[in-house]
Amino acid sequence: MAALSRYDRWRDRAELPLTIAAVVFIVAYAVPILDTHLADPVVRALSIVSWVTWAAFGVDYAARLLLARRRAHFVRTHVLDLALVALPLWRPLRALRVVTLISVVNRRAGSTLRGRVATYVTMGTLGVLLVSSLAVLDAERGAPKATITTFGDALWWSITTMTTVGYGDLYPVTFTGRIVAAGLMICGVALLGIVTASFASWFLRRVADDEAAVQQATLRDIDALRAEVSDLRSEIRQLTRAVTPRTPDR
Amino acid sequence: MAALSRYDRWRDRAELPLTIAAVVFIVAYAVPILDTHLADPVVRALSIVSWVTWAAFGVDYAARLLLARRRAHFVRTHVLDLALVALPLWRPLRALRVVTLISVVNRRAGSTLRGRVATYVTMGTLGVLLVSSLAVLDAERGAPKATITTFGDALWWSITTMTTVGYGDLYPVTFTGRIVAAGLMICGVALLGIVTASFASWFLRRVADDEAAVQQATLRDIDALRAEVSDLRSEIRQLTRAVTPRTPDR
Amino acid sequence: MAALSRYDRWRDRAELPLTIAAVVFIVAYAVPILDTHLADPVVRALSIVSWVTWAAFGVDYAARLLLARRRAHFVRTHVLDLALVALPLWRPLRALRVVTLISVVNRRAGSTLRGRVATYVTMGTLGVLLVSSLAVLDAERGAPKATITTFGDALWWSITTMTTVGYGDLYPVTFTGRIVAAGLMICGVALLGIVTASFASWFLRRVADDEAAVQQATLRDIDALRAEVSDLRSEIRQLTRAVTPRTPDR
Amino acid sequence: MAALSRYDRWRDRAELPLTIAAVVFIVAYAVPILDTHLADPVVRALSIVSWVTWAAFGVDYAARLLLARRRAHFVRTHVLDLALVALPLWRPLRALRVVTLISVVNRRAGSTLRGRVATYVTMGTLGVLLVSSLAVLDAERGAPKATITTFGDALWWSITTMTTVGYGDLYPVTFTGRIVAAGLMICGVALLGIVTASFASWFLRRVADDEAAVQQATLRDIDALRAEVSDLRSEIRQLTRAVTPRTPDR
Repeated sequence: MAALSRYDRWRDRAELPLTIAAVVFIVAYAVPILDTHLADPVVRALSIVSWVTWAAFGVDYAARLLLARRRAHFVRTHVLDLALVALPLWRPLRALRVVTLISVVNRRAGSTLRGRVATYVTMGTLGVLLVSSLAVLDAERGAPKATITTFGDALWWSITTMTTVGYGDLYPVTFTGRIVAAGLMICGVALLGIVTASFASWFLRRVADDEAAVQQATLRDIDALRAEVSDLRSEIRQLTRAVTPRTPDR
Repeated sequence: MAALSRYDRWRDRAELPLTIAAVVFIVAYAVPILDTHLADPVVRALSIVSWVTWAAFGVDYAARLLLARRRAHFVRTHVLDLALVALPLWRPLRALRVVTLISVVNRRAGSTLRGRVATYVTMGTLGVLLVSSLAVLDAERGAPKATITTFGDALWWSITTMTTVGYGDLYPVTFTGRIVAAGLMICGVALLGIVTASFASWFLRRVADDEAAVQQATLRDIDALRAEVSDLRSEIRQLTRAVTPRTPDR
Repeated sequence: MAALSRYDRWRDRAELPLTIAAVVFIVAYAVPILDTHLADPVVRALSIVSWVTWAAFGVDYAARLLLARRRAHFVRTHVLDLALVALPLWRPLRALRVVTLISVVNRRAGSTLRGRVATYVTMGTLGVLLVSSLAVLDAERGAPKATITTFGDALWWSITTMTTVGYGDLYPVTFTGRIVAAGLMICGVALLGIVTASFASWFLRRVADDEAAVQQATLRDIDALRAEVSDLRSEIRQLTRAVTPRTPDR
Repeated sequence: MAALSRYDRWRDRAELPLTIAAVVFIVAYAVPILDTHLADPVVRALSIVSWVTWAAFGVDYAARLLLARRRAHFVRTHVLDLALVALPLWRPLRALRVVTLISVVNRRAGSTLRGRVATYVTMGTLGVLLVSSLAVLDAERGAPKATITTFGDALWWSITTMTTVGYGDLYPVTFTGRIVAAGLMICGVALLGIVTASFASWFLRRVADDEAAVQQATLRDIDALRAEVSDLRSEIRQLTRAVTPRTPDR
């Protein structure tokens, strides 16, 4: 309805380019991890691509900071955005940018709360599993006594970790790998919570629907009563007019 | 009430034969996995039985597609049905057809939401545990370094996986086995969610019952008010008649 | 209020003896498992005690079956009671009788739903952990390759299993041990569900309390309105009497 | 509003000193565990500091017991406070005093229920992880066959335990370590419950908001009805005045 602020217009226009940048980043991040025998020029090219996507996110953050009305508030409420840009050496966390893509998809999905949550959870779970697998493989592969040494192993380990099964046939031994694992476990706990909450809200909606029906009946009853009182009033007015012809009807 | 469409009539009539086909399929699927020393003719006979049940499901899918009013919609909302029919070589997933049997039982169970959910969860959990155990045993038995080599082990592993305990004494090492495990974990997360949601809805039903009582009291009070207004009206009418004998009662 | 049926009177009077029998059974069950160097007469004495408690439960079941009004209904709704009596050789399941004790304590605990659930969950969890530890120790101790060989190990294993942590440092290898483990996992899933549901109902009670306040305000408003209409009615009656002195007030 | 009791005044004034004492205790507890090569005088100094903080909590408990109006009730509802003071040799449990600090922060955090719960859960989880890691490291380090021998390992183990993943690459083998683990698992189950309940209440708040809107509409309707009845009454009064000019308006 209202005219969009310059901040909102920037955010809307930057959405598609940033989504593309996030996908490109994932590819540039994934390929050298998945194929360790790449020719040097390819590795260097992918590294440049990775830096370009990093620059895109940096420019976006700077522009939004400049256009924001309350800059201190913006910085406080976008700490994660800053962390993803300002810590270029902490590679695994940079990969979390793929979440941007998810939120874009999410915004375009169906309008019901349940539908949007389902989309977010499915996309987010797949994204987190993919990124975690890449990050943990990158961190673990070279380590002595490492148990996670192929992408298949990494993906399998991610799934057993996120569902909190944790067989222990595979587990990270490096500091970075364990940080990734901790993040994955937190996501797993959140996933369990969301799935459970969805079932609970589905069960309880039935009860709530019944209540809503009773409340609607109450509203209808009160409306009927009001009409009755209104009728009564006009009858009295008529009566007043009948018995007091000398006073003009107010 | 309304006349059933030809689609609905087909679905209702196909229910019993398909349920039988699902049970027969499970038997034909389970026997050669459980007994690896079967004579060749028996194995071949069971394979033919398996193909016949596959054909039954294929015919059912084709018939429902033909009878459906909105075919594009039917295809979109029955992707799983198609997958179970069209991927005959992906044996473990074919075994999931037993879910059909569960939904049939479910439809005939008690009418309360809680009762139907309890039936579905119990039957579904047992069905998933059985099928997963068979599928993982089939996939793992021949693999080098496999830890799951007997049906007892497979069933024990299924239970520890689905409850997300995951000791790690047994775990799949093949690709197929891990796919089965991932499905089992997802079922486990869903199981946890459903059990929790059931308890939560039971707790909260008490609160809701109290609220419903207050709402019923509100409705009763409004009815009493209405009766009182109605009485008032008849008294006013009486008054009108008393003071204005010349005007006929309308 | 109403006179108790003979069935209810039996149940009430049998409560205390059965509770004592359950405690005695646990002791007679636990001692030979915990101390494997008992003298033969002691072992035999404990075995006799165990059979006597079994007889007590058997007599109780028979008496209730005789006194029940609808015997078929009684059998159907007390399958677990029958199983605990009729399967004397399946020792671990017999130990589940301690649940009787919990339900007795529970019936006497505070009257709020939350309080009763908290008592039940705490007592039940401790009881299940104790019984499972004894049962698994009894089943595993003699087995080749067993990892659970002391009561401390068994208790530690029970806790890691019930919370679904499942390190895998200890795990059952016998059939009986795995049955106990499966029961423990199911209890663990239920425990998680109950704890979560308690938190959820505590959170949601706040919302419900707000709603209840609005509903009470609605009720009060309607009552005030009713008083007003009642006043109005008496005014009209007075008026009718004033203008029509010839007709007697009805 | 009302004048604070002496008990309340003591509690309010003791809050800051006790918070500082809790932090100092954690440092004095952590340093000798993290650095096993401390010079003897440093170890002795830290031990004295630890005893001083213990004394501070002891004095606080004694003072509150003296000032409490119903002493028996105070003792019953502050069992944990007594345990933390009276069991000075059970070091890991003494470390739980850090919970005091959390509750102080919590009391000062935002006023919404959700905000306070989020603060409590985040701070509590971090505090429990830190203290458990220190306690388990202290207990395990010297044990034969111990797998947890560095602080990094201990922290990693705490995280895998609290999220109920439990790989089994690391696990406690001493009695004290297993007690710590059991406490951590219980916290993990509670954490899962709280996270799930938060999501559930967020989902269900939407439904509750809709209901609240209907209830507000009901209240508004009743107000309109009341205004109408009020108007009716004044009109009837006017009528009364018109037909009965001899009786003065009451």
